[in-house]
Amino acid sequence: MDGSLVPVVATGCEDFMARFRRRKVVLVAGGAGFVGSHLCETLISEGHSVVCLDNLQTGRIQNISALQAHPQFRFIEQDILDRLNWQGPLDEIYNLACPASPPLYQRDPIHTFRTCTEGVLNLLGLAKATGARILQASTSEVYGDPEITLQHEGYRGCVNTVGPRACYDEGKRAAETLFWEFGTHMGVEVRIARIFNTYGPRMSPEDGRVVSNFIVQALTGADITIYGDGMQTRSFCYVDDLVAGLKALMASETSDPVNLGNPGEFTMRELADMVLRQTDSRSRLVQCPLPVDDPRQRRPDISRAAARLGWAPTVPLEEGIARTIRHFAGELQVSDPCEALLHHV
Amino acid sequence: MDGSLVPVVATGCEDFMARFRRRKVVLVAGGAGFVGSHLCETLISEGHSVVCLDNLQTGRIQNISALQAHPQFRFIEQDILDRLNWQGPLDEIYNLACPASPPLYQRDPIHTFRTCTEGVLNLLGLAKATGARILQASTSEVYGDPEITLQHEGYRGCVNTVGPRACYDEGKRAAETLFWEFGTHMGVEVRIARIFNTYGPRMSPEDGRVVSNFIVQALTGADITIYGDGMQTRSFCYVDDLVAGLKALMASETSDPVNLGNPGEFTMRELADMVLRQTDSRSRLVQCPLPVDDPRQRRPDISRAAARLGWAPTVPLEEGIARTIRHFAGELQVSDPCEALLHHV
Repeated sequence: MDGSLVPVVATGCEDFMARFRRRKVVLVAGGAGFVGSHLCETLISEGHSVVCLDNLQTGRIQNISALQAHPQFRFIEQDILDRLNWQGPLDEIYNLACPASPPLYQRDPIHTFRTCTEGVLNLLGLAKATGARILQASTSEVYGDPEITLQHEGYRGCVNTVGPRACYDEGKRAAETLFWEFGTHMGVEVRIARIFNTYGPRMSPEDGRVVSNFIVQALTGADITIYGDGMQTRSFCYVDDLVAGLKALMASETSDPVNLGNPGEFTMRELADMVLRQTDSRSRLVQCPLPVDDPRQRRPDISRAAARLGWAPTVPLEEGIARTIRHFAGELQVSDPCEALLHHV
Repeated sequence: MDGSLVPVVATGCEDFMARFRRRKVVLVAGGAGFVGSHLCETLISEGHSVVCLDNLQTGRIQNISALQAHPQFRFIEQDILDRLNWQGPLDEIYNLACPASPPLYQRDPIHTFRTCTEGVLNLLGLAKATGARILQASTSEVYGDPEITLQHEGYRGCVNTVGPRACYDEGKRAAETLFWEFGTHMGVEVRIARIFNTYGPRMSPEDGRVVSNFIVQALTGADITIYGDGMQTRSFCYVDDLVAGLKALMASETSDPVNLGNPGEFTMRELADMVLRQTDSRSRLVQCPLPVDDPRQRRPDISRAAARLGWAPTVPLEEGIARTIRHFAGELQVSDPCEALLHHV
């Protein structure tokens, strides 16, 4: 006898016990957001207990409405800047709490910044107190407007400290620093995911990100707004792929930052054409001025994720866009572009 | 009559009145530090009222002992992280509060980071409440380990977010962001000085910066420790030049970051040789491993300071080093290297 717990259940229940033993208590901060709600759903489907914390600043209660009745799911409406009173064990914390699109994070830039610093310190303190492993949703924005075409984790970025994107970019950089400190000097198991552009069902139609913008514009027959000449590129990762990457990173032994994204590269014009084609929309393309500090290119080098997590995205853009259009069509309650035009008055 | 105050004093007192009218109330956070104490002294000598705030974490009371009896000078021992209760008018705030050398800012990295963020937010809030103009002592460290030989203010830097220098580098970058936000969106008059290596009397002998290290080692006959091959370069600005630059920036209409430093470039070996020669020391040079993320080169492009402030440093290194050696000789109470060797047992 080695002193470990011996199952008292009869033979044949091993599967149940194994599942019971790996059931975890997981805190998802920002769990009512676009990515957070998908993560909560996946964790619940795997049998874990999930506490979803969200201040509903940009998260939406409808994103988690299907989970609310689940006995293993609990929602707490709270800002991570407020003191967290945690009772009981806690195995993992995913911190996805922060507005992620420029129009939203620029609404209250000081709050955005404090969310990434004081809020992060609160969660790191909770991780230290409970022994939980903690993952930070960092971002490709820590690379700013990159000078290299494929961004690897060793690249130190090109971020303007004094500009309208800095409250988010520098906040997220600072959060990585705080994670590094707690990981290196305070014995906390930290994980840092640098998340590139992600899309999929439950993106907010109003958050101003390009995929949701284009789809909503195409479905409602509104003009499709392209910033600048539309030749700037982005790489888009479908949300299911990202959630798989976040879980793989959490389960790994890697405390270094890890890029999670899809290296497939598309110009804004290519994306607009794809959306127009799939929605059979009659929307026109119109050009708007490029915002200040808008990056010309973003494309993840995911060799570290491949090597250390065995992870790579699997959903092609064509397919992911189709799924996302179906979602938005349902949310907007439109079935075809002609009807959409009527709705758009 | 235009309603403005009319002097009631007799003709001949205009000079006095002019001086009275431009007498300001100035808060110097970190005023007991190396640079801060020189700034306090200059401001007092110009007739201003100075409140010096310092938590004495790295600032030293002896730095301001000569000022303590002055009726226009007041010292408050306080951390800028604590709530500031300010009564009465306030014209200017200089924020120099933060440990500035790696061994000191790495002692409590989270406190260092919070000083640069939550502490800075406290001071910016005070500036907003009082209408004071506020200057942030930023740093060449926001450029990290630069890829360009002469760093101008548009250069976005090469900073590692996950390393031992990040608590300071990213903290200082974050402080610039907070200054920009308050300047752009909250009507606060902000000034941002990116300060390069500064040296002079009252550097702490223990803070581990290269000039004080070399001088103390040479004066006490200890080995002179050179990190790496000693061919990395630095640019050194004498403290009087820096103080003049800070005042010129505060008086200017420039809310953009401005480099303040001396572009004269010297290798660590050249500096060591100069110190050895001037102290007539018998200390030996010994090599130590280069610390993680130690920048290979730092040299300011000061064309913006020249154009907008009409400022340039005037004290040659040879001269500044001589003055600094005299100061340290006094502080260490040594008059010649032979005596120093006895003291160093």
